[in-house]
Amino acid sequence: MKYGYFDDRNREYVITNPRTPWPWINYLGNEDFFSLISNTAGGYSFYKDAKFRRLTRYRYNNVPTDSGGKYFYIKDGENIWSPGWKPCKTELDQYECRHGMNYTILKGDRDGVTAEVLYFVPLKTWAEVQKVTLTNNSHQPKKLKLYSFVEWCLWNAASDMENFQRNFSTGEVEIEGSVIYHKTEYKERRDHYAFFSVNTPVQGFDTDRESFFGLYNGFDEPQVVAEGKPRNSEAHGWSPIASHYLEVELQPGESKDFVFVLGYVENKSEEKWESKNVINKRKAKETIARFDTSRKVDDALADLRHYWDNLLNVFSVDSGDEKLDRMVNIWNQYQCMITFCFSRSASYFESGIGRGMGFRDSNQDLIGFVHQIPERARERIIDIASTQFPDGGCYHQYQPLTKRGNNDIGGGFNDDPLWLILGTTSYIKETGDFDILDEMVPFDNDPTIISSLLDHLTVSFNHVVNNLGPHGLPLIGRADWNDCLNLNCFSNDPNESFQTTENKTHGSVAESVMIAGLFVVYGREYITLCRRIGKTDEANLAQIQVDLMIGAIKEHGWDGDWFIRAYDFYGHKVGSKENEEAKIFIESQGWCTMAGIGKEENMNVKALDSVKELLDCEHGIVLNNPAFTKDRKSVV
Amino acid sequence: MKYGYFDDRNREYVITNPRTPWPWINYLGNEDFFSLISNTAGGYSFYKDAKFRRLTRYRYNNVPTDSGGKYFYIKDGENIWSPGWKPCKTELDQYECRHGMNYTILKGDRDGVTAEVLYFVPLKTWAEVQKVTLTNNSHQPKKLKLYSFVEWCLWNAASDMENFQRNFSTGEVEIEGSVIYHKTEYKERRDHYAFFSVNTPVQGFDTDRESFFGLYNGFDEPQVVAEGKPRNSEAHGWSPIASHYLEVELQPGESKDFVFVLGYVENKSEEKWESKNVINKRKAKETIARFDTSRKVDDALADLRHYWDNLLNVFSVDSGDEKLDRMVNIWNQYQCMITFCFSRSASYFESGIGRGMGFRDSNQDLIGFVHQIPERARERIIDIASTQFPDGGCYHQYQPLTKRGNNDIGGGFNDDPLWLILGTTSYIKETGDFDILDEMVPFDNDPTIISSLLDHLTVSFNHVVNNLGPHGLPLIGRADWNDCLNLNCFSNDPNESFQTTENKTHGSVAESVMIAGLFVVYGREYITLCRRIGKTDEANLAQIQVDLMIGAIKEHGWDGDWFIRAYDFYGHKVGSKENEEAKIFIESQGWCTMAGIGKEENMNVKALDSVKELLDCEHGIVLNNPAFTKDRKSVV
Repeated sequence: MKYGYFDDRNREYVITNPRTPWPWINYLGNEDFFSLISNTAGGYSFYKDAKFRRLTRYRYNNVPTDSGGKYFYIKDGENIWSPGWKPCKTELDQYECRHGMNYTILKGDRDGVTAEVLYFVPLKTWAEVQKVTLTNNSHQPKKLKLYSFVEWCLWNAASDMENFQRNFSTGEVEIEGSVIYHKTEYKERRDHYAFFSVNTPVQGFDTDRESFFGLYNGFDEPQVVAEGKPRNSEAHGWSPIASHYLEVELQPGESKDFVFVLGYVENKSEEKWESKNVINKRKAKETIARFDTSRKVDDALADLRHYWDNLLNVFSVDSGDEKLDRMVNIWNQYQCMITFCFSRSASYFESGIGRGMGFRDSNQDLIGFVHQIPERARERIIDIASTQFPDGGCYHQYQPLTKRGNNDIGGGFNDDPLWLILGTTSYIKETGDFDILDEMVPFDNDPTIISSLLDHLTVSFNHVVNNLGPHGLPLIGRADWNDCLNLNCFSNDPNESFQTTENKTHGSVAESVMIAGLFVVYGREYITLCRRIGKTDEANLAQIQVDLMIGAIKEHGWDGDWFIRAYDFYGHKVGSKENEEAKIFIESQGWCTMAGIGKEENMNVKALDSVKELLDCEHGIVLNNPAFTKDRKSVV
Repeated sequence: MKYGYFDDRNREYVITNPRTPWPWINYLGNEDFFSLISNTAGGYSFYKDAKFRRLTRYRYNNVPTDSGGKYFYIKDGENIWSPGWKPCKTELDQYECRHGMNYTILKGDRDGVTAEVLYFVPLKTWAEVQKVTLTNNSHQPKKLKLYSFVEWCLWNAASDMENFQRNFSTGEVEIEGSVIYHKTEYKERRDHYAFFSVNTPVQGFDTDRESFFGLYNGFDEPQVVAEGKPRNSEAHGWSPIASHYLEVELQPGESKDFVFVLGYVENKSEEKWESKNVINKRKAKETIARFDTSRKVDDALADLRHYWDNLLNVFSVDSGDEKLDRMVNIWNQYQCMITFCFSRSASYFESGIGRGMGFRDSNQDLIGFVHQIPERARERIIDIASTQFPDGGCYHQYQPLTKRGNNDIGGGFNDDPLWLILGTTSYIKETGDFDILDEMVPFDNDPTIISSLLDHLTVSFNHVVNNLGPHGLPLIGRADWNDCLNLNCFSNDPNESFQTTENKTHGSVAESVMIAGLFVVYGREYITLCRRIGKTDEANLAQIQVDLMIGAIKEHGWDGDWFIRAYDFYGHKVGSKENEEAKIFIESQGWCTMAGIGKEENMNVKALDSVKELLDCEHGIVLNNPAFTKDRKSVV
């Protein structure tokens, strides 16, 4: 491999060239505290919600890419370098990044010094631990200078990059010993702060960004490091950071470890203060004490590894095919767990502020994860269902911190309700826990409107039945699985987003054949569930609706050679041979085929043959956005 | 001076050291098209609205500061440098930045080559013109490579930095000859595009950012420039840029000029296309043709200078004091004009997306500008008044593009209405144009609710009268001039902003002595106006209200030695000797004194003596935010 290789024994991907074609990132944390980290130490941390509780700054879409992170600078004589190559970009004699299960190890060698940094979020801990190991492999004693660096985000990641009139005036830190506390707005309405510590006395520090970098330097050349001594700056406003300064002497062959902890604390309002304007540091100190030796850190990492052993041992294959085994036994399950935890709300391409957790996404993500920790899947199902409306409709997204539906994005994605059936039945199939159906779950988080989870499934099913269009097919609402296929949206105002613009939901006749197929698939799941728990009448009634839907699809959703995609606002077909562009879409072929619709008439085979035929001539199929027509070269 | 000096003859500030303690910026444009430019070529351009029509990207609060701009890279042998020092930061033999009246000239010398760049927005032009002059002062022929650079913003500056799932998939350019067109979303809902041209054939170009910089380099080291040849990249998605590549040969003593034009075009929807998917370039070509020779550019700059001669000649002093004359005759008036045009919506500290134009601000800004171009002041007054509500209340801000009130920020800043009286009477005093009072102006931009501007002043006046608290003092509403003094806001939710959180406006008894003083000052202006136009009855009625207010201030707004600041939601005094902190505020002393309240009792002298006394002992006065108490060292 050009950039690295899989280490199956350690369940790691090992990157040996820092110049990957794009930053390759790992995800740390799996409950409340999370970090993203790239193979060159870029990334950020947040508590629960990447928008509302961002601990450190990261700059998306910057020049250079992947700007901001958990950086270390080593000064060896006049040479300045970083264990992860970036930010310094000083050439390393050797470089290695090991992305493991919720941990990452960066290792750099330069001039006889090896610097290794282990990054991970220990279990049940609101902190990221960074263990730095410096080793002198040369035959000379080494006098090194080590600088840590993180830049504090002022909590709300959105306003952090907009409202400078406010932001540049509010930053506050406290410095006590080797711990730098970030407490912006703590004096006002916040009951939480962050800290960055090291388990040894420091020879200096910096907490003001411009003091550290100077005005004209990038992350690659901090002024303080070039000058060789810290300024012991105390931030008041502007941009608070945290940088420790350590002088490290190493004899030939000697190694030293340093443990840094980047943590988050919430205090009860009556326990906020130690004394006037001095924050209560008890919890921070407790966390720091849990990791104040390398031994404790190693134990915590062993716990994390053990945790992953247990997760991955639930399900494994031994197929004889190394690559298949690797994917099934390690990486796909890891990916599913990460997706469950982050729910696509924060990644290298999701800025963590544009959206929260998806109703649709989180239900789908459950199915790859439910066998690992069913009790967390259960909790997630209840969380999701709690945001549903009494008529079965849904907010499209909700914020992980508040668990409330996101009004900015709104609802009306009419496929959404059906995915709750998928999530719930997948959970029951895995666990046999039918009791979840009796769990009382509010609608729209309103405790006065509460009903069993089974009722939530019923209203989900009925939401389709109650929202049928003129062809007996499901109304699409705002959009369906294909978010971009807005059949009702005709805004001429370019300042509106496509997703949230007011569309013509009321009185619209736009119908989705994809939702129709989906309804047949998960409607049958619902029927099976009802029969299994003895709700025969409900099952029979539901079966009638499913049969009606199959009939409607055959009559109005079939174009002769394939399934059409939809009817638009004007009742015109979309994804039909009648169309000049976008004649055939994959979603309706897939779902109607999975539903076995028209099996007896060979419809499904015919449909998939049509897909294949069109694929072969590279012409006319649009996978996603109708704007991507063949002249855009995005056609498959 | 350490960093530069004033050149009064040319009305320029001349910076001779690029390492200013903070980027020093100038503002270009004065009607529809605007640019910010720093002394090292950082900044961006927008059409009318810095949020909705951002042409180029700029990164606020970045590391390094002032990242993104209108950059040029010169490659002379293996040396790479920029005329404005940044982004390359290659040491220059000489550097000069001339910030003039709506234009900026950057000049750098290196190894016998002088590069001068003139930046300005010509009058009545939706474009920024950049004239680059390269001169060979050496005794050898020079073969230079010149690269231009701007990075396109995807129009909406807010979503541009949030929604990467979308942004990285939508970027589109067209390249024709030496013109690079930016047309993202033009195929969908937009009827506008941007372009960047040069008036000579190019030897290459780049439009894809990563192709130009590489993944790991900052603005200081584009990969393409290091390699010495362009990649002729065509952006599809990701981050579109525009960079021209020119090979320039200069004999000893020879100079060559190149004119770059960065422009914006709107097309009628029926005229959007030249042919299928080819944008209609007619207007762009017209603009480019207007500046296709250096002579035309020089003429346009002369027009701009002449325009400023006329503006500044309206009012000038010859005091014998060089510094006073300089400020009054040039810089203060320039500043007022800039403030009028940008209305604080975009600057180095306002990101251009957090707010639009302020109701309060824009009225205040008029008074420094009205003598220069009264007709534009008139237009602005009508625009502002058109956002007012029928009861006299106001949106606190409105968007310059749409001229609609900004719902996100809301209203209820109860000082706002009074500033319309200030704006209007200042205009009339300057122009004698009483006819403006008969101008029919809608409320809340609703053409069905329309009334004379005089009526708007009346409802402004009455808004105070109709919103009095228990002491007969004006209710503060959401806040007053001191935005931070939220006397009704008790949110415990740190995710809400102070400014927009739901506060207890209804039923609140929070009163502002500052608004009371303001009411007396501008109430009297209103009375004088009414008398002047023969509305004696209205004047007499208003006089009664003003007198009542004076009485209320004396009785309930006076603390014995100074004016209190307010009564809070609970009816407690703020800014009183009874308070432990924040005993005295400057705003109520200032406005009540300007109103001459208690002159006979010597109240005003006593109040200002109290201020002075407290200032002398550096204790207890809070200018703005009550959070800035003395331990924060922000006390004056």
